[in-house]
Amino acid sequence: MLCVGLDPDPQRIEGGAAGALRVCKEVVQRTEEHVCCFKPNSAFWEQYGPDGWTALLELRDAAPDTPFLLDAKRGDMANTMRAYALAVFNTLGMDAATVNPYLGADSVAEFTSYADRGVYVVCRSSNPGAEDLQHLEAAGKPIYRHVVEIAERVNQHGNVALVVGATAPAQIAEVRRATTVPFLIPGVGAQGGDLVASVRAAFNGDPASCLVSSSRGVMYADQPGREASRLKEEINAVVGALR
Amino acid sequence: MLCVGLDPDPQRIEGGAAGALRVCKEVVQRTEEHVCCFKPNSAFWEQYGPDGWTALLELRDAAPDTPFLLDAKRGDMANTMRAYALAVFNTLGMDAATVNPYLGADSVAEFTSYADRGVYVVCRSSNPGAEDLQHLEAAGKPIYRHVVEIAERVNQHGNVALVVGATAPAQIAEVRRATTVPFLIPGVGAQGGDLVASVRAAFNGDPASCLVSSSRGVMYADQPGREASRLKEEINAVVGALR
Repeated sequence: MLCVGLDPDPQRIEGGAAGALRVCKEVVQRTEEHVCCFKPNSAFWEQYGPDGWTALLELRDAAPDTPFLLDAKRGDMANTMRAYALAVFNTLGMDAATVNPYLGADSVAEFTSYADRGVYVVCRSSNPGAEDLQHLEAAGKPIYRHVVEIAERVNQHGNVALVVGATAPAQIAEVRRATTVPFLIPGVGAQGGDLVASVRAAFNGDPASCLVSSSRGVMYADQPGREASRLKEEINAVVGALR
Repeated sequence: MLCVGLDPDPQRIEGGAAGALRVCKEVVQRTEEHVCCFKPNSAFWEQYGPDGWTALLELRDAAPDTPFLLDAKRGDMANTMRAYALAVFNTLGMDAATVNPYLGADSVAEFTSYADRGVYVVCRSSNPGAEDLQHLEAAGKPIYRHVVEIAERVNQHGNVALVVGATAPAQIAEVRRATTVPFLIPGVGAQGGDLVASVRAAFNGDPASCLVSSSRGVMYADQPGREASRLKEEINAVVGALR
């Protein structure tokens, strides 16, 4: 149930895109036995320009048996989302991706139409600004609950999931009461999210119900493999106590 | 006041990224005298993988004296938005960009902190799904009006603008009553937006108040230069009648 983010930071890693690739390949190698998927965030690779995209393609090939979830939070009108979906699922060969719901169901549907890929719709993000729009109340419930309904509407292929941040376990619990779709839970580690409360709120018996993601916390640990193992054990302990 | 989109479609243009670059360079050359800026949408270049990014860099260099607005609609938590801003403004050398407001003010602020670049916040998009979230009423006004407030909050450098689609001139008028910031108005041409009503609703005396964008309508016209000229004249005629 652990997902490890692969987000190279030029301030911490020397050698441009080649350095980023080298470090991330090592993180992949050291953590692969502990994770269910890897989650590169597109932004960190885009910083390097064309070389970053080449490196990301190579990184994906470095772990062919582990799913890759591209955290890209794309959101645009349908015609454009079709191009983004092609870029993410075909050109980059990703197994899943995050999308932004602000442009509505017709936008998200261009991703979910790839029946064999997973689509994680940002519902309640892990940053402080999440409250600015997501917590506004409309028709008796907050906007993030309306996003749950959009996600359900485009779930004909059963490939839709939601992103709910570990910094807001109360909202995770509320969203879990509203839907059975899988959750991706970022924000543990550097962002200070509450792993135990988040897993308790999200887990519904299905391992996919509660995919916990750590990026900087694992990637820049002294020993990424040990940190991934520790997080995995912590998640499994919480789930074990719930069963 | 005309902005031309540069969105290469592999279904219409042969030769991969090189073909896309060749066609877009020709569109740039034929329309440059009629436009105030060019607007490549990131999605269409990402389809080509690393070669697409290389082509986009080269395209940007083909018109060094005309501003480029990257339509990328990025939106992520602050740390990640910092990487996106670096990618867009430094790596790609863009003069302005579109962003998505769903993650709130701290997310958008990472772009607006580049005081010499323009940031267009998606407010009311031009697609049918725009109504799903953007039109929900919260605290007495629709969500897109709350986006106006977020945009105003992060406008310390006077570099913030809004995206309001030409398919919704009534909403353009409503948003114009709420703010004086510049507007980018996509959706004329292929999407069937109402150019005349949109310009009337948006224009407030400042040319930047009403940047009208056409992508497919110009790019795939038999004569892109003639179509750009025609659109420019049409916009100018509406504005002339308003003065």
